Amino acid sequence: MRIIIDVMSGDNAPAELIKGALIAVEEFPVDITIVGDETIIEDIVERDNLDLSRLTIVHADDVINMEDKPLSVVRDKSNSSMSVGLRMLAAGEGDAFVSAGNTGALIAGATLIVRRIKGVQRAGIATVLPLEKPMLLMDSGANLVVNEENLEQFAMMGSIYMKKIFGIESPKVGQLNNGTEYNKGLPLQVEAYKRLSEVEGINFVGNIEGKEVPFAACDVLVTDGFTGNILLKVVEGMGKFMLKTLKGVLTSTLTAKISALGLLGQVKTVKKKFDASEYGGAPLLGISRPVIKAHGSSDANAIKNAIRQAIQFVNTGINVEIAEYSVEFDRKKEEERQREREEAEKAKEAENSSKESDDSK
Amino acid sequence: MRIIIDVMSGDNAPAELIKGALIAVEEFPVDITIVGDETIIEDIVERDNLDLSRLTIVHADDVINMEDKPLSVVRDKSNSSMSVGLRMLAAGEGDAFVSAGNTGALIAGATLIVRRIKGVQRAGIATVLPLEKPMLLMDSGANLVVNEENLEQFAMMGSIYMKKIFGIESPKVGQLNNGTEYNKGLPLQVEAYKRLSEVEGINFVGNIEGKEVPFAACDVLVTDGFTGNILLKVVEGMGKFMLKTLKGVLTSTLTAKISALGLLGQVKTVKKKFDASEYGGAPLLGISRPVIKAHGSSDANAIKNAIRQAIQFVNTGINVEIAEYSVEFDRKKEEERQREREEAEKAKEAENSSKESDDSK
Repeated sequence: MRIIIDVMSGDNAPAELIKGALIAVEEFPVDITIVGDETIIEDIVERDNLDLSRLTIVHADDVINMEDKPLSVVRDKSNSSMSVGLRMLAAGEGDAFVSAGNTGALIAGATLIVRRIKGVQRAGIATVLPLEKPMLLMDSGANLVVNEENLEQFAMMGSIYMKKIFGIESPKVGQLNNGTEYNKGLPLQVEAYKRLSEVEGINFVGNIEGKEVPFAACDVLVTDGFTGNILLKVVEGMGKFMLKTLKGVLTSTLTAKISALGLLGQVKTVKKKFDASEYGGAPLLGISRPVIKAHGSSDANAIKNAIRQAIQFVNTGINVEIAEYSVEFDRKKEEERQREREEAEKAKEAENSSKESDDSK
Repeated sequence: MRIIIDVMSGDNAPAELIKGALIAVEEFPVDITIVGDETIIEDIVERDNLDLSRLTIVHADDVINMEDKPLSVVRDKSNSSMSVGLRMLAAGEGDAFVSAGNTGALIAGATLIVRRIKGVQRAGIATVLPLEKPMLLMDSGANLVVNEENLEQFAMMGSIYMKKIFGIESPKVGQLNNGTEYNKGLPLQVEAYKRLSEVEGINFVGNIEGKEVPFAACDVLVTDGFTGNILLKVVEGMGKFMLKTLKGVLTSTLTAKISALGLLGQVKTVKKKFDASEYGGAPLLGISRPVIKAHGSSDANAIKNAIRQAIQFVNTGINVEIAEYSVEFDRKKEEERQREREEAEKAKEAENSSKESDDSK
C-alpha cells in the first residue's frame, strides 16, 4: 500500500509532516510518497539531520495557502503539492492522500480531480469528535447548504465509516436540531427526519440537541456544513477552554498547587481525551479514493495517526460499501422517477379518454 | 416597582418559584405578584410552611406545558398563568414579567399580547453565556430564519443591553460564522457583515468562529435562532461534560482523591463559573415591556437572580434606548424607500421624454 502526503500543508509544514511520514513508515507496513518543494525539503533534511531513504519524493513547485480560493487547486495553483498529490491519487499512483492544507481547496480538488463515487451527490467532511464516545460529525464544513437527500447520504456514509473503522455494528444516527420532536427545525430538518426514519440500513435515533452532543447521544451526527462547522469549532474551543480553566484551578492557590501534584497524570489523561488528533484526520467521505484532511496544526504524531487512519480506510473497503449503497440509491431514484412519469402519462390518458367520451356524447 | 412571576412554569414549579419570589422580596426594594393556581399554591404554602403575606397572588386556572404549541398562549390556554401574567404586564399592572415556561409560547405571547417596540422587526432571545467573560448570544432560538436587518437590530439591542446591564461602554459585536473573512458563510452572513460594518453605533469586530466563542471574542454575538440554539446548548452541554470529566479526574485514584481534598473550593468556583443562572434569565429583547425567560430548571436562587435582572432591566431604561434606535431605523428605511421611489420616477420621466424626442424626430 502506498500513501501520498502533501508535506507543504498546514501550520507545521514541511518538518512535522516529513517526520510524521518517517514515523509511519517505521511503524506500519506501508510505502509513502511525500509531495513538496524539493529545495525546501532538502533544507529540512539537512537542518534536522533526517534520513529520507525509505520515502519517495515527488517535486511540486507551488503551495496552496490558507488564503487561496478553493478552485485555485485546478487553476492558477495546479502545480501545487496538493494538486500534484491529488492527480497521483486519481491516476492510481497511491491508495490514499493526506493533506493538512486549505480545506476548501482540498474538497474542490478531491471532487474535480479524484471525483465522487457514482451516485454520491455531495462529498462531505466527516470529523470524529473526541467526546464521551467518539462521534462522527458530517458534514463539518464542505457543503454550507444541503438537502434531505444529501443528509441521508451523509448518514449512510457516516454509518459505514463508523462500522468499518470503530467496529460499531449498527451505528446510531442522530440529526442535529433545535429540539428533539420530529417537527422541530426548518423544513429541511423536518423532511430529513422523515427520510432518515424510513430508509433501510440507517439506525436513526432522532433529533439531537446541542446539550446532548457531548454525552454519546449517537455515533453519527448529520447536519449541514454551516451548522456542523460551528458545532465542530465550539466543541474544539470548549475543550481548550476546559483545559485552561482546569489549569487555573490547579494552580490558583498554594494548597491547590500542592494538591495538583498528585493529579498530574490525570490531567494528562483529560488532555489526551480532548485531543482530536488521536483519531487521525477527517476523511472526505464520498470521494472515489480515500482523502484525509489532517488538522492544520498537526504535529508529527497527528500526521502519523492520519496515515494510520488512511491505511485503515483502504484496508476496510469503506468505499466499496459506499459505492454499493450509492448505486442502489441512484437505482431507486430512477425507479421513482420512472413511476412518476408512468403515473403522469396514465393521468393524461385518462383525461384524454374522458374528453373523447365527452366529445362523443 | 412590581414584578410579575409565572410560578406555574418550569421543572420546579411552583415551590422553587414561590421561594425565589420570597427571597427577592426580602433582598430587593420590589413588590411581587405571583400568578398561578391558588389551590396548588396553597398546598405548597402548607407543605413548606411559607408566609406569602408580602406577595400578591393572582389566580390562573390553567398551565402551559412544554408540549403545548406556541399559539396556545392566546388560544386554548388563554387562562394559563403565562397568559394572565402577560396580559397584566400589557395592561401596566406590573413592570416586568418572569417565566420559566415554554419558550415558544412565551415569545408568541410576548409578541401578541405585550407587542414589539415600534420599528423592531423581530424580538429575540438574548442569553448571556457564562464563559471567560459574559457574552450575549442573540438570537438563541426565537427566530429560526432571519434576514440581515434582523441581525442588525439584534446587534443594536444586544449592545444596549450589555451597556446598560454590564456597564460595557462600547460592546464588541461579532457575527457567528464558519470563518473570519468578510466573504464567509451563506449570503445572509455576507450581507449582514457589510451592514454591521456600516451601521453607526455598532462596534463590529467581524466574524467569530466557534472556537473563539469561549475566549471573550466579543460582548454580543449575533446569529439566526437555529444556529444560536445549537450553540447555546452545546456550550451548556460542554460545561456539564467538563464538570463530569473533572469529577472523574479527581476521584479516579486514591492519590487523586486525597489531592482533590485540597481543591474542593476551586471546583466549586468552576461550577459557579459555568452556572448560567448566576446571570438570571434570558431577556426577550424587542418587546415593549421587559419579559425574562428563566431556565426551565431554575431553582429559587435562579428565580431570585432573574427577578434582580428584571429590576435592572426596568431601572436602566433599556427599552427607551431600543425604542429611540428602532424609530430611527424605521425613519431611515422610509427615507431609503422614498429615495428609491423618486429615482424610479425620474428614470421613468427620462425614458418618456427620450421617447417623446424620438417620436418628434
